[in-house]
Amino acid sequence: MLVSTHDAGKDNVMTISWTMVMDFSPLFAITTGAWNYSYHALRHHRECVLAIPTVDMLDTVVGIGTCSGLDTDKFSRFALTRAPARHVAAPLIQDCLANIECKVVDIIEKHDIVVLQGLAAYFDTERKEQRMLHAVGDGTFIVDGRRMDRRKMMAAKLPPGV
Amino acid sequence: MLVSTHDAGKDNVMTISWTMVMDFSPLFAITTGAWNYSYHALRHHRECVLAIPTVDMLDTVVGIGTCSGLDTDKFSRFALTRAPARHVAAPLIQDCLANIECKVVDIIEKHDIVVLQGLAAYFDTERKEQRMLHAVGDGTFIVDGRRMDRRKMMAAKLPPGV
Repeated sequence: MLVSTHDAGKDNVMTISWTMVMDFSPLFAITTGAWNYSYHALRHHRECVLAIPTVDMLDTVVGIGTCSGLDTDKFSRFALTRAPARHVAAPLIQDCLANIECKVVDIIEKHDIVVLQGLAAYFDTERKEQRMLHAVGDGTFIVDGRRMDRRKMMAAKLPPGV
Repeated sequence: MLVSTHDAGKDNVMTISWTMVMDFSPLFAITTGAWNYSYHALRHHRECVLAIPTVDMLDTVVGIGTCSGLDTDKFSRFALTRAPARHVAAPLIQDCLANIECKVVDIIEKHDIVVLQGLAAYFDTERKEQRMLHAVGDGTFIVDGRRMDRRKMMAAKLPPGV
């Protein structure tokens, strides 16, 4: 997952492995803290964009995660295409499969958890490559395989319209 | 992800889609609350086992997630094989690929987040089927595809020994 932020006239983006969807609210939790340069922007402006990359972007994702916005303009270095968001100053990343504009609803400092609420979501349905990545945590990544459908079996547990 | 608990002489297990690994600590966050029967056991005994199922267990996973420990002995109904854990009263689930004994380190009631710390982990290296499942949230599940290795590129970001 990429997280874009805007601070002091500059856009920045970081890679986050530790993310959680929280129910159908739509709320999200990410684990981050002062060791990430983007944390200051998140904390100060209380907004960001979550951008979901696909398998063809793996080297970009790892590259973004292994340099710092402190000394690098990552949008330029990784030739990312920005688009303006509607509710936040942080940019959408058009190269990604999906973008979610978010506001920070809480920062749980004790556990370095930032709780986000989605304000608007964009999904590029025309994108050919739609397979996402799952960080294993050891420097390897699992690519999405096939999809299995249990919608009928889960109907009672899903909110209407899903 | 399955979560086993033990309360009042009975084992129980629930399915949780909303989970997050928090760094290499090893800490985990799950989203749950009083709407889940297992929540009482988690809150009262402050321990559980996280058990990671594979694709061949999908119907079991969905089945466990669509009935309640309130009126169902799920271990019996889904013919799960238990093994005793070392640090917690909740059982390991031998049918799963991996099991992690956990203690509850915090419950953030405002956001229904339970923070867990891993105490011991077991991985069934001899299991043939090792592909895991990712809940999309709409009743469909993505199966693990191939693995891509970026360990060299990420070396500076990984803790020693990973």
